Order: sequence, then C-alpha cells, then structure tokens
Amino acid sequence: MPVARVHLVPAAAPDDVSGLEALIAAGRLDPSGILAIFGKTEGNGCVNDFTRGFATRALTDALAAHVGREKAAAVCYVMSGGTEGAMSPHWTVFERLEDAPGEENHGPRPALAIGRVHTADLPPEHLGRMGQVELVAAGVKAAMKQAGIRAARDVHFVQIKCPLLTAQRIGEAEARGADVAVRDTLKSMGLSRGASSLGVALALGEVARDRLGDDVVCRDWSLASGRASASAGVELLNHEIVVLGRSADWSGPLTIDHAVMADAIDTEALRKALDRLGLHAAGQLDRAQQARLVAVLAKAEASPDGSVRGARHTMLDDSDISSTRHARAFVAGALAGLVGRTMIYVSGGAEHQGPPGGGPVALIVER
Amino acid sequence: MPVARVHLVPAAAPDDVSGLEALIAAGRLDPSGILAIFGKTEGNGCVNDFTRGFATRALTDALAAHVGREKAAAVCYVMSGGTEGAMSPHWTVFERLEDAPGEENHGPRPALAIGRVHTADLPPEHLGRMGQVELVAAGVKAAMKQAGIRAARDVHFVQIKCPLLTAQRIGEAEARGADVAVRDTLKSMGLSRGASSLGVALALGEVARDRLGDDVVCRDWSLASGRASASAGVELLNHEIVVLGRSADWSGPLTIDHAVMADAIDTEALRKALDRLGLHAAGQLDRAQQARLVAVLAKAEASPDGSVRGARHTMLDDSDISSTRHARAFVAGALAGLVGRTMIYVSGGAEHQGPPGGGPVALIVER
Amino acid sequence: MPVARVHLVPAAAPDDVSGLEALIAAGRLDPSGILAIFGKTEGNGCVNDFTRGFATRALTDALAAHVGREKAAAVCYVMSGGTEGAMSPHWTVFERLEDAPGEENHGPRPALAIGRVHTADLPPEHLGRMGQVELVAAGVKAAMKQAGIRAARDVHFVQIKCPLLTAQRIGEAEARGADVAVRDTLKSMGLSRGASSLGVALALGEVARDRLGDDVVCRDWSLASGRASASAGVELLNHEIVVLGRSADWSGPLTIDHAVMADAIDTEALRKALDRLGLHAAGQLDRAQQARLVAVLAKAEASPDGSVRGARHTMLDDSDISSTRHARAFVAGALAGLVGRTMIYVSGGAEHQGPPGGGPVALIVER
Amino acid sequence: MPVARVHLVPAAAPDDVSGLEALIAAGRLDPSGILAIFGKTEGNGCVNDFTRGFATRALTDALAAHVGREKAAAVCYVMSGGTEGAMSPHWTVFERLEDAPGEENHGPRPALAIGRVHTADLPPEHLGRMGQVELVAAGVKAAMKQAGIRAARDVHFVQIKCPLLTAQRIGEAEARGADVAVRDTLKSMGLSRGASSLGVALALGEVARDRLGDDVVCRDWSLASGRASASAGVELLNHEIVVLGRSADWSGPLTIDHAVMADAIDTEALRKALDRLGLHAAGQLDRAQQARLVAVLAKAEASPDGSVRGARHTMLDDSDISSTRHARAFVAGALAGLVGRTMIYVSGGAEHQGPPGGGPVALIVER
Repeated sequence: MPVARVHLVPAAAPDDVSGLEALIAAGRLDPSGILAIFGKTEGNGCVNDFTRGFATRALTDALAAHVGREKAAAVCYVMSGGTEGAMSPHWTVFERLEDAPGEENHGPRPALAIGRVHTADLPPEHLGRMGQVELVAAGVKAAMKQAGIRAARDVHFVQIKCPLLTAQRIGEAEARGADVAVRDTLKSMGLSRGASSLGVALALGEVARDRLGDDVVCRDWSLASGRASASAGVELLNHEIVVLGRSADWSGPLTIDHAVMADAIDTEALRKALDRLGLHAAGQLDRAQQARLVAVLAKAEASPDGSVRGARHTMLDDSDISSTRHARAFVAGALAGLVGRTMIYVSGGAEHQGPPGGGPVALIVER
Repeated sequence: MPVARVHLVPAAAPDDVSGLEALIAAGRLDPSGILAIFGKTEGNGCVNDFTRGFATRALTDALAAHVGREKAAAVCYVMSGGTEGAMSPHWTVFERLEDAPGEENHGPRPALAIGRVHTADLPPEHLGRMGQVELVAAGVKAAMKQAGIRAARDVHFVQIKCPLLTAQRIGEAEARGADVAVRDTLKSMGLSRGASSLGVALALGEVARDRLGDDVVCRDWSLASGRASASAGVELLNHEIVVLGRSADWSGPLTIDHAVMADAIDTEALRKALDRLGLHAAGQLDRAQQARLVAVLAKAEASPDGSVRGARHTMLDDSDISSTRHARAFVAGALAGLVGRTMIYVSGGAEHQGPPGGGPVALIVER
Repeated sequence: MPVARVHLVPAAAPDDVSGLEALIAAGRLDPSGILAIFGKTEGNGCVNDFTRGFATRALTDALAAHVGREKAAAVCYVMSGGTEGAMSPHWTVFERLEDAPGEENHGPRPALAIGRVHTADLPPEHLGRMGQVELVAAGVKAAMKQAGIRAARDVHFVQIKCPLLTAQRIGEAEARGADVAVRDTLKSMGLSRGASSLGVALALGEVARDRLGDDVVCRDWSLASGRASASAGVELLNHEIVVLGRSADWSGPLTIDHAVMADAIDTEALRKALDRLGLHAAGQLDRAQQARLVAVLAKAEASPDGSVRGARHTMLDDSDISSTRHARAFVAGALAGLVGRTMIYVSGGAEHQGPPGGGPVALIVER
Repeated sequence: MPVARVHLVPAAAPDDVSGLEALIAAGRLDPSGILAIFGKTEGNGCVNDFTRGFATRALTDALAAHVGREKAAAVCYVMSGGTEGAMSPHWTVFERLEDAPGEENHGPRPALAIGRVHTADLPPEHLGRMGQVELVAAGVKAAMKQAGIRAARDVHFVQIKCPLLTAQRIGEAEARGADVAVRDTLKSMGLSRGASSLGVALALGEVARDRLGDDVVCRDWSLASGRASASAGVELLNHEIVVLGRSADWSGPLTIDHAVMADAIDTEALRKALDRLGLHAAGQLDRAQQARLVAVLAKAEASPDGSVRGARHTMLDDSDISSTRHARAFVAGALAGLVGRTMIYVSGGAEHQGPPGGGPVALIVER
C-alpha cells in the first residue's frame, strides 16, 4: 500500500538542487518515487519568467543522475514564478513510497493520495477555448484514477501547469491560418489558466458541461472550481496535472483538506479548514502547530471588480507591476500572518479558481 | 477642552477631494480644525512618485477654498506613496475640535491628542546625518508640547514626512562644495527616513544621544524607535511632524495604542494591542469590532538580513520592484487579514523604526 | 494675418511652470495666444500615470493667473507620459500671434498653421469603436477649418489626446448595461489611440469609410494614418485635437513637414524630410542646424510581429516594462542620434499611426 | 597562423542553442576552437537576472556534447542581460581557427586577435576595491600575451564579466568579520564593473597606478578606460576576461577598431570609426556595408550628472526601471539608427568605461 510523503525544500536560486540532493543523500527521499515537484521560483511569474524553465532544467538534470533521463522527464515539474513580498523560494516534493519503511509511516486511512498525468501538446489556437477545457478535464479524470481517488469530493487540490502564447507561437499559428483567442501574451496566461480551471470544474462536477463554451472563458466568473490551481509557463506546450486528495488505497501520516477564500483577506476560511484538520488557532499557529503543517498551496488574484469589501484597490490599474505580482504578495502576507511562516506556495492568477478575487487553498498536515 | 476626531476618506485618485468635500458639506468635518492629513496615494512610493505632490496640491487647494491659503498651507500633508496589493488609497484626516458639539464627543480622559509642527528646510548635505537627527528631535518635542503630551511614554505614533535627494539637489549641494551622504537617489530616501526616526528615538528617550552619530544612520540597526514612522517625498525640503498620543488635556471617544512588530508576519503583536484596546479577536475582527477600529498606521520593510524566521526572501535582490513596494504589499496583507479591511495605512521603509524587518503599528479606536 | 510661434520649454518636474512664466515675463510669449501645450512628462505613460494630470493642473493654474480660468481651460493640454532613456521632459507651446510685432516674424507663405478643438465626452462603450472614429474625424475637420488649412495634403501632424478605460469607468458602463470593447485597462489605451488615429485617416482621406468598422480597430494594421499621433490619458473623458499644417492664411518664419518611419530604425525617412526642409545632414545635424530645428514630434511602437528587419525583439514579451516604454526609449535614441538633442517628443503607442512598428514624425523648422 | 572567426547567432530564448548547433552541423563553426561567447540575453540585466546563468548552462551543455565537459567549461561565457528596446537577443561566438581551411580566410595582417583568461574567485570584501582592480589588471595582461598582442594601443576591446554581491554573499562575508564595500546589491554591480574597468585602464596604461585607490572606484569619474566593457552577473564568483585587438600573429579577413562615445547621442564618434574601417556612411549604412559589419560591441550608461548636452534626463530618478535598462534601450536606438540593424551588443553600466555618460564601442568588420 503506497504512502505519500511531502518534502519542503528551500531553494537558494532557481537552479539550486542542493537541498534535494541532501535529502536523497540522507536517505530521506527516494528519487525513484518522486511524482511531482511544485516550485516557487523568484522570477516575475509572467510571460518572460525564465526562472521556471531554468529550475525545471536543473531539477531534471539532478534527478536524471539518480533515476535516468526518461524517468526524470516523467516527473511533473510545476514551477510557479513569483515570490513577491516575503514569500520564500522553495520546492515541494511529492513522493509516492511503495513500501513504507517503518510503522511511523502508517497512519489511519484514508490518507493523502497523489496522481499525475501529462496531456498531449495544446495547439495555440485551442488555448483559452473548449479544446483546452476538454483536454484538461480528461487529464484530471486520468490522474484521479491513477491516484485511486474514486469520488470527486475526495479531490482537494488539482495543480495544473499550462502553456501560454508568445509572439512566436502566435505567429506560427497564424501562419497556418489558425486564429488565436488573444494576441496579448500576458493576457494569454490568464486565458490558459481560466480554461484549465474550467476543465477541472468540469471533471469534478462543479460546473455542468452545458454551461461551458468558448465565450465563457474569463468572462462568466460565476463558473469556477474550488479546487483548481493553474499556473501558466512559457516552458511547456502541454499540461502537467497533479491531483491531490484522500484515498483509502493510501496510508501514512499525511492528510489534506481545502478552503475557498471568498476574497483576498478571507483568512477565516483558512482558519476553519485548519480547525477541521485539528490545528485550532486563536491568532497565529504556535510553533508545535506550525511543525505539523506540511504545505500551504494557494491561489491569489486581484478581484476583477477593482475592490475588496467595497474598498478600491489599484492592482488592475498599475502599469508598472502586474496585478498577479501584487496579488501574490498581498495574499501571501495574509496567509503567512495566520500560519506563521513564509515558505508557502501562493500562485498568481486565479481565473475560475474560486470566486472572483478569492481562491482555493489546500492544506497538507501531519495528523 | 479639545476633542480629536479622525476621519477615513476613500480617494478615487491622487487628486480626489470629493470625499473630503462631502464631509465638510455634511457638517461632519470642520476644515478650520484640520491639523494633518495622512494620505496613502497610488504612486510607487519611491523617488519619482508624483502622486504625493499632486495629492498635496489638490488637498491644499480644496482646503484653501474653505479656510484661506495661509491656514491651508499650515496643515501637515503626509502623503505616503504606494498602495501595493489590495491596500486602498485614502486620506486619514486628523481634526482638532475646540468646542465639541455634543455629549457624544466627551469620553473618558486621557484621550487621543494631536500635535504638529513644520521644521525649517534641511540642507541636502545634512540629510542622513546628525543635522537631520537633531532637527527632527527638536521638532518632536515641540509637537508634544503643542499636543499637551507631557511624558514620552504617552506618545504612540510620530509621523514624519522628510525630504529626499534628487539628481538636481545633489548637483546644487555639490556646486556649493558640500558633500552629500549618498548620491543614489532611491537610497537617499532610506537615509532620510533613518535619520528622522533616530530623531524621534532621541526625543522620546529610546536611544541616548551619546550612541548617535553620522556613522550609525542606516548602519547600526540596534538603534530604533518603536513609535516612529517616516516617509520620504520629493515634494518637500523640510519635515512635517505629527505626534499622536494620549493627553488628559483632551477628551472625546478616541484613544490610541501601539505595537512593535518583530518581523513582517508578527501579527500577534498587533493582536495583543487590539486586546489592550478592548478588541478581543479570535482570528479576524468581526464587523462590530471593525467599526470601532478607526485607523491602522503601520511601517513595513524588507528585513535587511534577507530572511524572515530563517526563510530567505527575495525582496532585496529584485531589481524590477523596489523592496519597499514588496514589503508594503506583504505586510498590508498580514495586517488586513487580521483587521478585516484594506483601508489601512502601511508606509514603506522602516529604517530605525522598530527592529530590522519589523516596525511600529499604531491603532486608533473608538472606546 | 496670424503667425505661429512654437516654444520649447524645459520642465524640471511635472508641475514646473517656471520656464513658461519666465517666457511670459520676458515678453516672448503672449499667454492669451496659446492654443496648445504638448508635454512630455516623466510618468510611465500608461494607465496609472498621474504626471499628465498633475502637469495639466499646474499649467492650467499658471495660465489662469494670466488669462482667466475660462480661457486657460480652452487650451489643449496634450500631456504624453514617458521620458524613457535620455528623452528630456519639456513643454512645446503653440502660440497664435494675431498681430506679429515685427518684420522678423513675417516669412514666406504658406507658413505653419495651427488649429485646435475639443470634442464632446466619449461614452466608455464607444472607446475603440466606430463611435470614437467618427467623433474624431469630425473634430479633425473642424480643426482644419479653424486653422485655414484647406487641403488634406497640407496637414502634417494631428495630435490627439484621447481617453482610456479604468476599472471604475468600465464598472460604470457595465452598470448601465453597456458593453465595453475591452476590460484590460492598459489595452484600452491602445484601442483608444487606434480608433482616434483611424478617425484622422478618415478625415484626411487616407482610408475610405467603407473599409472601417468596429472589427478593424487594432486588427487590420494595413489601415493607417501617416500623420496621426494619439496619446491616451486617464485625466480626460473627451478628445483634444490639434492640427498642424501649412496655410497661406498664416505667415512667419516657421514651416512644417513630416516623414513616416517604416520601422523603429528608419532614420533615413527622417533624414530625407530634414533634407526637404533645407537641413542637409551627413550624420548628425551640426549646431547651426540644431538651432533651426524647433520641434521633433514622433510616434513609436513595438512592431507587432515581434521583429525589426527580421531580428526578434522582446518588447512584447516583457512583463516588467510595458512595450510602449521600451519603444519610446529606443526610438528616441534613434532620432536623437540624428538630430543631436534629447529634448524631442516621442509618444508611445502608434496603433494605426504609420505602418506597424513604424510611425509618423513631424518636423517644425525655422526657414 | 591562427585566424579569428566571429559568428552572430540569433537566440530565440536564453537557452536556445539551435543556431549554434546548426552552424556546427554545417561545418561553419568548429566547436573546439571557441574561445568565448558573448550573449545578449533577455533578462533585466540587474541582480536577479537568471537568464544569464540559464544561457551559460545551456551553452555549456551544448558545447560539452561536442568537446567534452572540461573544454566546454574553459570557454568564456560573457552573458550580458538586457535587450531593451528593439535590441535582439543573440550570441556572438569568437572562434580561433588554427588551420584556416581556405585562402579566403587569409587577409592582410595584422588581423583580429583574441585572448581570454579566467581569474581566481574574488572574495566579496574585495569587490569594488583595489583587490579587484589588481586582479583584473593581471588578467588583462595575461590575455594580451595569450593573444599575441604586444602593444596596449593594439587592444580595442576588453570584455570582463565580473561578480556582484547578493544578500547571501554579504552575509557570508560579514559572518567572517569582513566588511563589504556596499550592502545594496544593485549598487554592488556598479562597483564591480567600475573596479574591473579601472583594472583594464591600469593594464593598458590609461590610468597610472598612483592615481588609484579604494576611494576612487565609482567616485573619481575622470579615471576611465576607453576600451573596457564590464558586465556583472550573479552566476559567477571570479572574472572572465576577453581581449580583442590586432596582432601580426593572426591573419584572416577580420579587423577591429573602436570609438569612445562622449555622451549617449555621440553617434559621430562611431561614424568616424566606421570611416576608418572603410565603411563611409552618409546616414545609415547601406545593405552592402551592413553585411560587412560583423559585430558592434558597446557600453551605455545614464550620465551621472542627470543631463545630456544640458537637457535633463530622468533615468536616475526612475524607481520603476533601473537606469541601466533605460540607457541600454536608448543607446541601442542611437547605434541601430546608424548601423541599420538591431542585433547589436549594448551592455549597461559604463562606470569608468569611457567618460561619464558615454562609453566605448568596438566594431569588428570584414575588410
């Protein structure tokens, strides 16, 4: 029976694999069991953020030395750029341990379960449209099956790395006579995240198929998934999908739950989820509680109506700093103030991921 | 006996005075009693942030129409640029009401007291040096006296608007043969804030005079004030000093206290101060509590050692976004997550204002 | 018979009117004859550039003291934000002198002629659509008539200041049930400039009406004006239109011509126009020639196909700096290298202004 | 007798080595002869520009597949970040061909000669001080010797890649009790470039040793090299030095000369150098001339006095965009306007490289 292990590893630079190597050398991480690595890297998280590709290359090279090129390439590297504010660059390594080495790894069931798939390449002209929604929905179902998660309600986080358009890719599509959904490359990141998230919502039954269509993507904000997290990156042309949930097929000390923040300061939703997981906090988590909190995975975005609880924000009118950077910094502050640490994963752009201006947050804890 | 009134007014743009005008028109604000206006304006908060000067001009013009040019010019306009994240642009108007119109304004004493002064112009070559420290210390004492605050311990916030160096001002000083402390204009903002804050620390007895000198400014971070808040702006050549505290000479429903955050996520310090003021919060303040919280005035900075609680941050290595902008966004998120609103005043650059990486926070509440 | 005078005035800050005041005090500029002031101000030239509004306020106040509020408000203030690279902030003041004071002002005819109009406010939902095209076209014709310019071929520059969408304006329109052309505020600037420029093209007969429609704006780049220059700004809701050309109804020493740069480095087009105006330059203009060159008015944009003469550029993929800022800096360098000075007016965003990636340049010289 | 070959290769991304591979596959580039690769990569060119490290890794990996890890590591990879404006990302590959394959490679002598060395690692506390100056001067002399360039006057370009300080490196040095020259990481790049350039000036006899000292670095701007080009990068701890000049020991069709621009728009200096090399241009180089111009290597900086030919610039007061980015965009425009192409190498930060605000430009042409 498999056991899920999750390792938080600080990164001193986008290509810093020393922490990963140290875990492997110490026998605490088996490289052959790694299914996925989520990274927070220190680029701008937008179109020209090459820290993601740099990190993926460094991580792949490092793993290849242990498990070979082919197996290293099959790992899902989900690099989310942008460590604004005091957010700390790090890797979250998801490991599937087939034969748990000791009793301490066998906790009550159901336990944290992990599934992952890679989709086929997405043609640029499908980006932000139903072609992308369907491709992702099929991928999510495949990942659930792989993880042994039977019911949609047992899925608590779906991380998707999706492609974006660049001037070059648009040119290639247009040279073929194809019409892309948008020519603004930064905006293409939003459309890609939005269509991917609707794909999750479709797979999990959060939105019915007949409400979907090309014209709702990044337009009808009433349609959303409470468990999707999508990041767009220049370094891939397909999707990498990682499903996190609970399954009776898995054992081990870890479990997972999620909250949906209604807006950028809805820390109460997170506090209630911590409560459900046994971390009762008046104010900030104390040190013992912080030690049990393995990972915080969140999405953030500037509320599209230009305000939070009636007060105007300026994130969408700032031409010097992308609103995704503003939102990550701010929401990371709100979450860190509650959980007491800055090594958290806050990813920008939450189109169709939770309500407008809010977003899903998943919590992985040791029971 | 004077009563202090504090008004929070949303600003739709740096020159939006419509909210101020509405308060005056409604008889809820007497323009002749305004001592100071603190503004959070939506510029970058750095050297070339002209939203501060634009706001000051608009506010001055508006008040001049009510009280005349001379009286309008005597108001302390402390414009702090930068509403990163979801922070909401607004004015905080400090009013001294000589004859409180009704019983509802007479609360227990001591109550919130306000003092303000303008210093003489600072020669560019004194910026960041003892000349500036002494000038500010004298100003703080004058403002305390004006406010009727006798003991240093009754001072809870000292807001200082201080000048910065521009290429032009440096050139003028050097043409006179004078040597400025720094030629990097962005860095001059930090030095000016640092020297001003040490001036507050000197005035309030937080740091002894014999520990001060030109060489400690922005170098010896063990020297700090727990109540200073300094903002640098291109639009002035002198200092504007506003002292907020408690005095038995004042009455009214408002009181004030402060906390010193030890680091960027030390929301517990704030929670304890809220407790002392009667706002006991498990998690976020509820709506009734939020209504009693009149103003949150805070300082934020990137911790100079490059980490928060041992985890690396990237704010000081980011050449695209000033660390002051990162820190404001993040700390605003941490504070807003606790108090439940985004119309808060978080000012960047906390050199010698609280411990390195932390900063003072003042809270004005209705009893 | 009127004489056109054009004054270049350095600006030390967005609200610096000292140079203007000095000219007036010296009797070299009659404030009552000012038709328009073009400003290059030092903001980011994008959505949240408040230097434009600040400058307009300062200039209006200054003129009002000389000619009264009403006449000051009728001046066209065209503030173009963004002095990237070594471009120097300045005002270009266009004056119509009714009674030329001396013989030195009477040169050969036709001479430089100036016309200006303000249009009505543009409803947000017309922005970027035919409603805006038609409104501008009518305005251009009115301005030509005012200037005494009879033939479209005698028009050499049409400067238009047009509005943009903000989160707030979009919200207002949508609250009325109206549908805006775009919800991305930065992108709305491009649409507004594009529709305005097509309005110029329509008025000057460069594009036939039957080729125009909502769907060509910022889509069909084969449609363009070789003489339009549009800047979008947050500070206005209507259009300010200034037409510059040659008319036999005007006299004086000044004349005007224009070039259309085919791409960002097409300095040869400019060199030919200088030749036509009698400024024959092998390489950079010499000092005597520089003294005769009164004003350089240019548009710049990143070529939408992502390349210049076959070599890739990265302006459209840079999420840290708007492509408009990149293009202004670069084209200003190309022009300044030829004319030998940095006080030139290069305005960003050249949608439908010259060919894609290129743009119009007007030259005003003393004969 | 060796022949120098120089290849300009477009880069579609920081890790794009396809152009390099194509040249090798076509037999036009012998990977074992590569001495150095200069890259213009599309990062911000400042502290957190990881495109340089990413490019170096990709190029090293690519060459290692051809010539082995050790030989690939010995190549000087000088990655200069920042392709602002229309500057085009590319690699300039410097090859030393021992046995020129045909007559067409044997031109008149002296011809272009190339030397390269790596220095030892620089302790962080030596950065920006005499320790760095001396280390670089010794390196330049070693590189001249290697290239067979006997006289300092035959050196026309010295490219140095030098390290910078990061928060972490400062912390390490301070933990050892060492005192660094500056704690501002962005500023450390300037100091490193400045000290390296004074090292070149010392080696080439442009500045006498007794005029040098810790206190002149980035202070006494009268001291400079007319041939140094230094770029700072986070990815190295030592210096990589490449000397380009003329030597009778080399043959082949290529030669080199240089100009020193007096300010950011001094294109006339460049035009005179083109003249000396046989490229006589009235205005922009024509197509035939462009084909003979192999490489343009230039330095650019914002003039420290805040003006160009008396007109104020705003580059040093802009807190949104580093002055190095402004200067690169602008000067690239000026140079591209003259030479007619955008694939040029303009590197930012010209401390002690040419006069303040100006900088060296080297030209490699085919005779």
